[in-house]
Amino acid sequence: MSRVYNFSAGPAVLPEDVLKQAASELFEYGDSGMSVMEMSHRSKAFENILDAAEADLRELMGIPDNYKVLFLQGGGHTQFAMVPMNLMKNKVADYILTGQWAKKAAKEAEMYGKVNIVASSADKTFSYIPDVSDLPISPDADYVYICQNNTIYGTRYSKLPDTKGKDLVSDISSMFLSEPMDVTKYGILWGGVQKNVGPAGVTIVIIREDLIREDVLPFTPTMLRYKTHADAKSLYNTPPCYNIYVCGLVFKWLKRLGGLPVMERMNREKAAILYDFLDHSKLFKGTVRKEDRSLMNVPFVTGNEDLDKKFVAEATAAGLVNLKGHRTVGGMRASIYNAMPREGVEALVRFMDRFEKENAK
Amino acid sequence: MSRVYNFSAGPAVLPEDVLKQAASELFEYGDSGMSVMEMSHRSKAFENILDAAEADLRELMGIPDNYKVLFLQGGGHTQFAMVPMNLMKNKVADYILTGQWAKKAAKEAEMYGKVNIVASSADKTFSYIPDVSDLPISPDADYVYICQNNTIYGTRYSKLPDTKGKDLVSDISSMFLSEPMDVTKYGILWGGVQKNVGPAGVTIVIIREDLIREDVLPFTPTMLRYKTHADAKSLYNTPPCYNIYVCGLVFKWLKRLGGLPVMERMNREKAAILYDFLDHSKLFKGTVRKEDRSLMNVPFVTGNEDLDKKFVAEATAAGLVNLKGHRTVGGMRASIYNAMPREGVEALVRFMDRFEKENAK
Repeated sequence: MSRVYNFSAGPAVLPEDVLKQAASELFEYGDSGMSVMEMSHRSKAFENILDAAEADLRELMGIPDNYKVLFLQGGGHTQFAMVPMNLMKNKVADYILTGQWAKKAAKEAEMYGKVNIVASSADKTFSYIPDVSDLPISPDADYVYICQNNTIYGTRYSKLPDTKGKDLVSDISSMFLSEPMDVTKYGILWGGVQKNVGPAGVTIVIIREDLIREDVLPFTPTMLRYKTHADAKSLYNTPPCYNIYVCGLVFKWLKRLGGLPVMERMNREKAAILYDFLDHSKLFKGTVRKEDRSLMNVPFVTGNEDLDKKFVAEATAAGLVNLKGHRTVGGMRASIYNAMPREGVEALVRFMDRFEKENAK
Repeated sequence: MSRVYNFSAGPAVLPEDVLKQAASELFEYGDSGMSVMEMSHRSKAFENILDAAEADLRELMGIPDNYKVLFLQGGGHTQFAMVPMNLMKNKVADYILTGQWAKKAAKEAEMYGKVNIVASSADKTFSYIPDVSDLPISPDADYVYICQNNTIYGTRYSKLPDTKGKDLVSDISSMFLSEPMDVTKYGILWGGVQKNVGPAGVTIVIIREDLIREDVLPFTPTMLRYKTHADAKSLYNTPPCYNIYVCGLVFKWLKRLGGLPVMERMNREKAAILYDFLDHSKLFKGTVRKEDRSLMNVPFVTGNEDLDKKFVAEATAAGLVNLKGHRTVGGMRASIYNAMPREGVEALVRFMDRFEKENAK
């Protein structure tokens, strides 16, 4: 079998060039005489890999010097605890609910302090981003938390909330490196890499230095303190070395493409192909308010569950896989991350078009 | 350059067969049409990989049904916090100090309750395992904690402590799968995989079911509760899928070799080659009391720092790498994990023999 077009929400498609390079040097990396998997994390060879990954990420995202970049483990759920444990000085934080991941983050934070939900789109199955231009921000909030692209629901903030001077913490997992972002607008940006950046097992945290505090909540494990990892430059303990190496290959791939402005243009073109089709289809429709549509995750339905199932089954047989929607939304979802080639989206739209004709009433 | 003999303490050498297989199927795994790195952790294909890994590990170690196997993230340092946060019901635990890792574990536990040091070999730079046959175990201890093989100091318990009925928690990172163990003697066995099992980024926890408690310490993050991961069969969140896959290849490799009894015999033979040489050398000597010698990590010194440096430099040039000892012990350390071929140890001893002759006074 040849490679399929993989629309998985994550772990997700990676660039073919990156996979080929990783395969070619898996057994022996450069002149090191060993695999990257076998390298001591304290070796010069691995240090070079880590330093290059950080430098390339800083260049791609334009990360200012007063922000640290941390390569951590434990995924988003660990950040749900680390954010309040490290930042909840006043034990108050404001959360905006735009989906399951923001909800889980808020629930975890409730263990550590008072959580105010300052906006939510739960009323319409999170199919839109609430108005965030004038929120009831708590005067003593330690931070304002958002999930900026919502993988399950296919929404994305087109404008950041006005936090009224409070630090913004944003989960960017499913839009990581998909477009340029102004890092200075955030206190913390973090993302699991397994959607747009690399193999599952790394969480990248970009944190403004003044938020790396010594006075964290009591009982905060050493490993869950940002300071531990910032002081040790992500080498406090053995990091997931091989996963970081593959992320580094993805950074190089993005640089070769021309960086995030080029990536964004490509992503907008890919998304437009699919959204344009949805907007003109008589069978399929998108589930998200137009102005809040994600460039990465595109949920759509036929309105008929049996037909949805038939579509997913036939698409899979045609090599267009992982199109089943999340159970809370139903229907289908196409995740079209950075590494999904334009040809994949075109193949999907051709398939949808044919399916629509074959299944016209 | 061809592959070197890599004596790194971890991350460390992996079996060549495993690396070759991983390389050959990195781009496309079986008939899945994608890399394992790109697979949804909820997909049937990955579920099969995870299930096979667990089943093979259970078979290799003879893990009884009343123990759960968890594939986690965060390394040993995260276990240092998880163990007390999950088990410290009475807020008391007994620790035996046999090196830096046991010390760090004890220090982390002090955040959560009273820690009693019931034995220690700190008096002689941890060069031996203390007598553990009749320890002053605390009557209300929630558990007794050991680090069973000490990577830095090259010691290993030849007999487990008498815990007087308390549950034994053991860090087996640097001896994981190097020999058969009787799992029923432990409450928890855990190990980072990056020494003997696979690429850094996975911690495997083997835990008796009654220790998977709901009533953990307050403020224990959801991700740091064993119950979270046991209930979700290691799929509460996205696990480090690719790393688990490589661990699974190592399990298959061990099964092909004949399992842990065969592995132990090979490890004993390899260790004997090196220890026999040390015991007869006029230049080099081992640093550990004979009866407590590790099969995995072999520290040795010449007694002359300049000569140690010269040895490490010349060995490196000869393709015998990562032999520098830990700064607290000095000299050299050869880690001869499962994947270090006998030929590697023989090459090291030949080199040491020549070096000794060339540098005789």
